[in-house]
Order: sequence, then C-alpha cells, then structure tokens
Amino acid sequence: MYHLHYWPGIQGRGEFVRLALEAAGAPYVDIARADEPAGRGMAAMLHYLEDDSIVRPPFACPFLVDGKLVIGQTAAILLYLGPRLGLVGKSEADRLWTHQLQLTIADAVAEVHDTHHPVASRLYYEEQTQEARRRAEDFRKARLPRFLAWFEAVLARNPRNAGRLAGGKGLHLVGARLSYADLSLFQLVEGLLYAFPRATRRHLKKTPGVAALHVAVAQHKRVANYLHSERRFPFSEEGIFRRYPELDG
Amino acid sequence: MYHLHYWPGIQGRGEFVRLALEAAGAPYVDIARADEPAGRGMAAMLHYLEDDSIVRPPFACPFLVDGKLVIGQTAAILLYLGPRLGLVGKSEADRLWTHQLQLTIADAVAEVHDTHHPVASRLYYEEQTQEARRRAEDFRKARLPRFLAWFEAVLARNPRNAGRLAGGKGLHLVGARLSYADLSLFQLVEGLLYAFPRATRRHLKKTPGVAALHVAVAQHKRVANYLHSERRFPFSEEGIFRRYPELDG
Repeated sequence: MYHLHYWPGIQGRGEFVRLALEAAGAPYVDIARADEPAGRGMAAMLHYLEDDSIVRPPFACPFLVDGKLVIGQTAAILLYLGPRLGLVGKSEADRLWTHQLQLTIADAVAEVHDTHHPVASRLYYEEQTQEARRRAEDFRKARLPRFLAWFEAVLARNPRNAGRLAGGKGLHLVGARLSYADLSLFQLVEGLLYAFPRATRRHLKKTPGVAALHVAVAQHKRVANYLHSERRFPFSEEGIFRRYPELDG
Repeated sequence: MYHLHYWPGIQGRGEFVRLALEAAGAPYVDIARADEPAGRGMAAMLHYLEDDSIVRPPFACPFLVDGKLVIGQTAAILLYLGPRLGLVGKSEADRLWTHQLQLTIADAVAEVHDTHHPVASRLYYEEQTQEARRRAEDFRKARLPRFLAWFEAVLARNPRNAGRLAGGKGLHLVGARLSYADLSLFQLVEGLLYAFPRATRRHLKKTPGVAALHVAVAQHKRVANYLHSERRFPFSEEGIFRRYPELDG
C-alpha cells in the first residue's frame, strides 16, 4: 500500500503521482485527505515535513512513503514508481528518456505556477497582478508554444507512432505503451486548458499529436474512471493551474 | 569519452555536470567550447537541438552524449553519471535520495535565475528590474533561508556526520562519501555568494554545516585543481548567478 502525502483539497503536483497510481490500479492512500484517527490526515503528513526524527525529510509535498522509503520530488516519485507500476519501458535508455520528459513537464508546471505568482508564493495573487500579466503574456506567447512544439516533435519522432499521428489513436511519447510521461502530459494539457483556454486551444491546433494524446489518455479505462470519481478534485484558484481571465490575453 | 553540450562562455547549468566529471577525473569534451573542425563547436551542439533527425531531442542545454544516448536535464544527467563516476551510493535508497537533493538544488537554481528574470528569459534584465527587486527580496528573505535550512537539516540528520558538524571536516549530504549532490550544493552556495554576497553570508552563519561543506568541497584535490584551471569560467552577468547589487538588499 503506497502512502501519498499531499495537501488536501487541490490537485497540485500530487496529481501527477495520483494519475500514475490510478492508471495502474495500484493500492494507495491519500494520507492528508484521510481521516485522522488511524495515524493519517494532515498531522501524519506534517510529521514527515517537520519532525526532527525524519532522517531524510522531504523538502516539500508531494512525497511518497513506501515502507521505510520516503521519496520527495514529483519526478523522483515517478522515477521510483514507473517500473513498479509498469508505466515505463524496461531499458535504461527508455527510463532516462521518460524521466527527461517528466522533468521538462515539471519545468513547464513551475512556469505555469509563476504566471500567477511571479514575485512570491507566499503573497496573494492580488499582490502581484501587474507582474503576473507580464509574465503570463510571455508564457502564452513564447513558452507555451515552445513546450507544446517540443512534445509534438517527440511524438512525431517516436518511430512507434509512425502512421498514427493523423488519426491520433495509440500515440505515446515513449515506445508503444502508456508511460507516466503520457499521463503527465495529459495533466499538463488539461491544466493549461483550464488556466489559459483561449491561448491553449489556439496553440493545440498546431500540435495535433499533443491534442490527440490528451484525448486518448482521458479515455484510458482506469484514467476515465478516476476522472469521473470523487477522488478527482476540480481545478481551482487554489492550485497550480488557475483561471484568471486577464492572464489569458 | 563523454560529450558535454552547453553554451560556451558561461558556467550555467552545465557547471553541475562539469563539476561531477572533473571531481571524478572522467574523460570528457566540452563540445561547444571545442574547435569546430572536428565536428565540434556550436554547430555540433545545435545539431542535437535543431535537427529533425534526432529521435530523442533534448529540450535545452545542458545535455550529455554518451555513445548513442543523448540525455538532457541536469538532474537526469547526474542520475546517469552518478554510478558511473562513483559519485553516488550503491543502494536504490541512496540513489533516490541523492537525486531528490539534486532536484531540490535544481529548484533553487531556477529560483535564483528568476530573481533577475522574473518576467521573461528572453527580455533583458533592464526590462524587468522592478519585478526583479520584488522577487529578489522574497528570495533573500524567505526562499534562501528555507533552502539553506533544509540542507543544514539533511547534513545534521545524516548519521554518518555524527561528531563532524562542529569541525566541519568530512561532512557529506548522503552517507560517508562524496556524492554529486555535495558538488552541486557547493556550486549553489558558490553562486549564491557571488550573486547575493551580503544575504548569503548572513544566512550561512546559521547553517554552519552547509558553510563547512562548501569549504571542504573546494579543497577536494581534483575539484580544487579544476577551480584553479582555465576550464573554470568566472561567474558573470551572462549566467544564472548574477551580481546586481540592488538585488542583494
């Protein structure tokens, strides 16, 4: 039983781990969302972050506890879970490449966060709206298209996608099977469509492979099940992907 | 022979890889700094970034080429090199923990970059100085101490550092041997001392373990050799760590 620790109430970075666990049908508990009595809830999560007795403390959420192992950093968690959940290829080359894709998705996510918090995470959005407008404009015009174009190139150059790009069925970032990078790219696109609906829809027209992968992942049986469950929280202005219309140009 | 690809003229993110290669005495070529005739130089680097024939293209520099493998993302490169260079423990737990430390250093480095470029990487610093002042203030007051305090806790809780924290000799982030995370923390502190000398010196007084590790790594024989060589470029206002006195408070 995997223990996922993340702030309750939002998808946040925890969602990338949650999607992998759900897509694989793996047994897990979302500790901070669970009831307190059984050593769960927020207190259990804060124990790992704040107690001096934790020899290898995570810097921040999300983190995964698997037996004695405590693993922080979203990409490191997925590096660990990938082989165990069957969500990554077997070769070292495939694993490194999938991890690279994940790290680049993490970079994109950090940039999305900074569109609404370009000055300081600890300040309210309302305290940095002017800066946010400038940063969001650069993100929409320069960074968003650059990230999407790179993922499109990755899909187009994956030899196992040959002949599939037009129809879009069976597309994968790595090899011929679903990987955690596919799930994470789905989540990135889903979040972008929430936060910047106009800009994202416009750019997705130029990256049909990415658009098709996004649709395909949402139709994956266990993922679809999860997305329609109560375990999937809605996007909100408390999370990483926030819809502030003024930032969508 | 490892091929490291990074922008010539600056330390940048390439420096984290360079330090690992140098500390291990590993054979490598800094491709973009090398002469063009032999298939090296900038053209060789841009080939990987821009040519459609690259099946798994890096998103950005630095990237490492080892035979047929092309690995982008600094932390992924170090994940790959760590075991090969003897700069990480043998257990999966040690490797994941060292990687986590590296990913957190990468997060800190990205935040340092954004102190002088809070709006857009493609704009000049002079076009975002107001935003930079606000972001740098938050970095100095909230983020810098938080990162340093976490690394101090990691050093203090490493059982193999017991009894060494006061004197500072032989300190390591993971276990009892030099890892690439030690090298990267050295580089982070070195860069912070360049960019924010006043704020960093002040905070380092409260994190004596981090300060001691920084000194110890600089004295490592091969590292010291490298730091005094022509291969070590100076910090400058073209790199990630930039000294703009107005951002140091």
